[in-house]
Amino acid sequence: MFKVTFTFEDGTLVESYANEGENLLEVARKSNVVIDAPCSGNASCGKCRVQLKDGVLDTKKTRHITDEEFEKGWRLACASTVCADVSVMVPDIASAFRSRMKVADLSSKEELQIFEKTKADLEEAGIALRNSLDIVEVTLDAPTLDDTMPDNERLMRALRRYMNLKRVRLPYAVLKKLPDVLRENDFAVKCVLRTTPNDMFVYDVLGMKEDAVIGGLAIDIGTTTVSALIINMETGEIIAKGSAGNGQIRYGADVINRIIESQKPGGRQRLQKAVIEETINPMIHEMCRSANFSPDRIYRMCVASNTTMNHLFAGINADPLRMEPYIPAFFKTNSLFASDLGIDINRDAHIIVAPNIGSYVGGDITAGTLTSMIWNKPEFSLFIDLGTNGELVFGNSDFMMSCACSAGPAFEGGDISCGMRATDGAIEACTIDKETMEPSFKIVGEPGTKPIGLCGSGIIDVISELFMCGIINPKGKFVREGRRIKRDQYGMGSYVLAFEEEAGSVKDVEITEVDIDNFIRAKGAIFSAIRTMMSSLDFDVSMIENVYVAGGIGSGINMQNAVNIGMFPDIPLELFHYIGNSSLSGAYAMLLSTDAERKTYDLASNMTYMELSTVPSYMDEFVGACFLPHTDTSMFPSVSPR
Amino acid sequence: MFKVTFTFEDGTLVESYANEGENLLEVARKSNVVIDAPCSGNASCGKCRVQLKDGVLDTKKTRHITDEEFEKGWRLACASTVCADVSVMVPDIASAFRSRMKVADLSSKEELQIFEKTKADLEEAGIALRNSLDIVEVTLDAPTLDDTMPDNERLMRALRRYMNLKRVRLPYAVLKKLPDVLRENDFAVKCVLRTTPNDMFVYDVLGMKEDAVIGGLAIDIGTTTVSALIINMETGEIIAKGSAGNGQIRYGADVINRIIESQKPGGRQRLQKAVIEETINPMIHEMCRSANFSPDRIYRMCVASNTTMNHLFAGINADPLRMEPYIPAFFKTNSLFASDLGIDINRDAHIIVAPNIGSYVGGDITAGTLTSMIWNKPEFSLFIDLGTNGELVFGNSDFMMSCACSAGPAFEGGDISCGMRATDGAIEACTIDKETMEPSFKIVGEPGTKPIGLCGSGIIDVISELFMCGIINPKGKFVREGRRIKRDQYGMGSYVLAFEEEAGSVKDVEITEVDIDNFIRAKGAIFSAIRTMMSSLDFDVSMIENVYVAGGIGSGINMQNAVNIGMFPDIPLELFHYIGNSSLSGAYAMLLSTDAERKTYDLASNMTYMELSTVPSYMDEFVGACFLPHTDTSMFPSVSPR
Repeated sequence: MFKVTFTFEDGTLVESYANEGENLLEVARKSNVVIDAPCSGNASCGKCRVQLKDGVLDTKKTRHITDEEFEKGWRLACASTVCADVSVMVPDIASAFRSRMKVADLSSKEELQIFEKTKADLEEAGIALRNSLDIVEVTLDAPTLDDTMPDNERLMRALRRYMNLKRVRLPYAVLKKLPDVLRENDFAVKCVLRTTPNDMFVYDVLGMKEDAVIGGLAIDIGTTTVSALIINMETGEIIAKGSAGNGQIRYGADVINRIIESQKPGGRQRLQKAVIEETINPMIHEMCRSANFSPDRIYRMCVASNTTMNHLFAGINADPLRMEPYIPAFFKTNSLFASDLGIDINRDAHIIVAPNIGSYVGGDITAGTLTSMIWNKPEFSLFIDLGTNGELVFGNSDFMMSCACSAGPAFEGGDISCGMRATDGAIEACTIDKETMEPSFKIVGEPGTKPIGLCGSGIIDVISELFMCGIINPKGKFVREGRRIKRDQYGMGSYVLAFEEEAGSVKDVEITEVDIDNFIRAKGAIFSAIRTMMSSLDFDVSMIENVYVAGGIGSGINMQNAVNIGMFPDIPLELFHYIGNSSLSGAYAMLLSTDAERKTYDLASNMTYMELSTVPSYMDEFVGACFLPHTDTSMFPSVSPR
Repeated sequence: MFKVTFTFEDGTLVESYANEGENLLEVARKSNVVIDAPCSGNASCGKCRVQLKDGVLDTKKTRHITDEEFEKGWRLACASTVCADVSVMVPDIASAFRSRMKVADLSSKEELQIFEKTKADLEEAGIALRNSLDIVEVTLDAPTLDDTMPDNERLMRALRRYMNLKRVRLPYAVLKKLPDVLRENDFAVKCVLRTTPNDMFVYDVLGMKEDAVIGGLAIDIGTTTVSALIINMETGEIIAKGSAGNGQIRYGADVINRIIESQKPGGRQRLQKAVIEETINPMIHEMCRSANFSPDRIYRMCVASNTTMNHLFAGINADPLRMEPYIPAFFKTNSLFASDLGIDINRDAHIIVAPNIGSYVGGDITAGTLTSMIWNKPEFSLFIDLGTNGELVFGNSDFMMSCACSAGPAFEGGDISCGMRATDGAIEACTIDKETMEPSFKIVGEPGTKPIGLCGSGIIDVISELFMCGIINPKGKFVREGRRIKRDQYGMGSYVLAFEEEAGSVKDVEITEVDIDNFIRAKGAIFSAIRTMMSSLDFDVSMIENVYVAGGIGSGINMQNAVNIGMFPDIPLELFHYIGNSSLSGAYAMLLSTDAERKTYDLASNMTYMELSTVPSYMDEFVGACFLPHTDTSMFPSVSPR
């Protein structure tokens, strides 16, 4: 055993022990030291840099570290193994996460089509794409010695002429700038207003010459990834789109670890700061910069996220969420304003939150349910959101039921040795020749990009193909031998998708029996949840008339393969639809449309929640589902290995 | 001429020139260098310390500077004269002002009687001493697996049981603490509420065992002095009372200079910071400490102040106030909350502001008018507030008219060589023997305190006595000679109230012809304003049935003497009433009573404002009033020198 010491920029350190030959990134992970590794340790992304401070490491040299950097001690953790006592410095992950921030290129139609579809679907369902924000131009009477009404009453008098008698509220920020704006513009101004039947709230007063676009911010706060849109609240046009890693990642990969971290002294503040100051605010600035838009002109915000994420976002104690009887502080709330949380948009912007319906079914699902449109159809539909957790909603225009299952991060490439997110170099689709066992891929990125790992849809394809070709058995164990089948010293098999020399990585891209086992448990959790929920309603899975799949797994998901491995029920393929990040499109809809917002609250309050852990049969269902495709093959009549 | 350099702790400096023998404090004043000098240069308060850095000063040694301090260069500016080039360091006045902060001893009945009278007067007028803040104890159903309503809805459900169906609003701060407070107190809590017919706002949620007093803050922001009360909003009890110098003093003694300063880059922020961060917040903390009260439990605040002060307090451009057509940003406003302005009380506390009626008649006057009760009487009454400006309101239960005149700081001891505020050592009353010309005093402080200067009421007495004894003529010039009459090289006379050896100061306490002239102009401004306003209504001053005098001049004011010098009209003495700081008592009333608040808004909107500068006869009236008692002695039939 060697001693491994991780030191941090703030002077703290973590000590751990490792066997000779252990991978440094793995040692870090088991020691709860978070090192940024988007490619999950394939030596392909070059992000997992550490700096050797003392001792030695056995490191493969990669193109990511220059000779000069190597000289200074920089190493990739994933390309290093332990061979002596060693001390390394780990850079703060927050800066790493910032570097992972991405602003989308809106000239790509693909980026926008989900939102176009959302708008079209909602309009078809009679949901007006209108909200209560508005701009009006008003010309005030200039004051004279005979008309000495003060500025605030003068503005209200002018506004009431346009909007009938209403209670007009001016926030402090508007009162503060009012004398200057009025006088600089000869008492003719544009007002950004929110009008409700009895009230008018003046968000802003702008000069006539200012380009006054009412901005809105829609944001999906995922446990792993945060995505956001800045939109024009009048037209629905998308002004900017961005994404970033959730800075809370350093405090744990899943919601339970985040909650535990939040209970430590100062933890709630740290987690709130990580998501707001280190993730959301930099994203807002980056998006605004790219679109040449002022953050101050964002007057409304909608957040969709799971219940834990919205509690931590608001800095509210999330501990009751994980302890019986699992009570959130809120399902819906109108208590949040930008200035309360320090969001860098207009300080008076109201933050609406897609409603939670329980501790484990949150606003990401209610928002997603809205854009799945299952509530508007007589057919029985199933909505599945595959994130770090899996959540399901089943129902139609008459009723809806939801549940959550802990599927783990496998669908996003986590818990899989060569797993990665759907970025450059990820194998997103795969077929395998039954005879030669040679694979063919579709790889994310420019033509010619070499494979470096597997994203969620790729994993489904590979496991399905391995199974259909009789290379693995229903338990996920390798039953054939060949050039691409490796066995380690304990006999554990793996399938090599790309040998080191074919790969964009410094090692083989492969899938192991452990990976397959992890994935089978993930897909088993999903399928057994579907079965359990439907059985409780006396429904058979064959009665499902539509399946809407959402989440980070990507549009590349091959539904047939997902059925082949027993993840989804064996129903006709044309009934499956991939709908993308429905949490973000739901937030977009709620932001843009007051009707959609109201509809989402209605959906949430009418949705029944089923706590799977209290259903005795769930465990049996799960065990039965941990096979390819299932212990009861009669449930998958269409699936038979070639 | 010698060069005098003033340096400051922040490294900046001011260079000036002075003749040999010029007093250093005077040199500082003419150079716009603010040195704290509450006794106005009588070497009695010991506050005007500067540190000699280079050169020499001719300084009288006083008891305020120890030998050791003298060794280190400390000098009193007022006791130093220029005799060579010199450089001195001037301490920041903000710290000096903080040291001038005072928390009142509430065991003294005198401190409280004005507020007791205010309450009694209002109740007699049918104004209920009730506001919309309240505490209720609520016991929530504890959540179970069958009752999983979230915390916020659970609280609202419980509150609605007590208060019928209302819209309940929880601010962020309450939502944030809610899960913790509920669980720490077994779901039984006290709520601090504000209830209006349709709304309920939850200011706070507290444990059952917490001592839940609803605090309120009433504050009078004077140009020179800020006074405040912390009160119990349920009982009206005064929990703490304090006062402090207005930290803005360093930016000018009067409102015009403050506005000019606020127009410089960063000026608005500087002035707002000076009054909030450097004056009000330290006062709140000091008062809370003395009363063992938590600032967080102050849920409402009322500010009474002149229009410039409330604009600068809110950080709002005050420049339009001083330029035709003199338009404030607001008369009344409901836009201000504690968190907006950074007031260190509960962040959701609403700040109500006593309404302005124009640029020069502000909330201090409307609040004062409320507690003067002139609006509740059929008799014609005059309300006079003697501050840095003089403001008048005349009227009865049917009508009211107001005006403002620039009286200057003479009533507070400013512009008078031995003037000072009514603190220890101030001569507050005086008689002079006609034959011997020897004075007798009443001095503020413990028996035996030696005189060091004159406060407002003392100045009135001295000038009246000098006039009544034939020592000065109607123009304020000395016409008798004697031991106590001095003449300088130019023949300017002065009267010595206390020779250096009798005084608590290092020089004679005296009043000069220049002082008398300054004061005559101040009293002339007041009297001519009264005459002009009443003439415009076709009233003669003899028709005044009551005079209510408010302001810092103090309860010691001798009304007969004020009539003798022609400051107030010659009407029976029993018609005069001193009512103290009516701005603060008005703020107290508005805070405690929703009816009183509403009444003040009514008074303000029904009060006519008269701009004296637009009345052609005002200048003639003023010139006529600049005599003792007046050029037209028939207006003062009761006044005849002994």
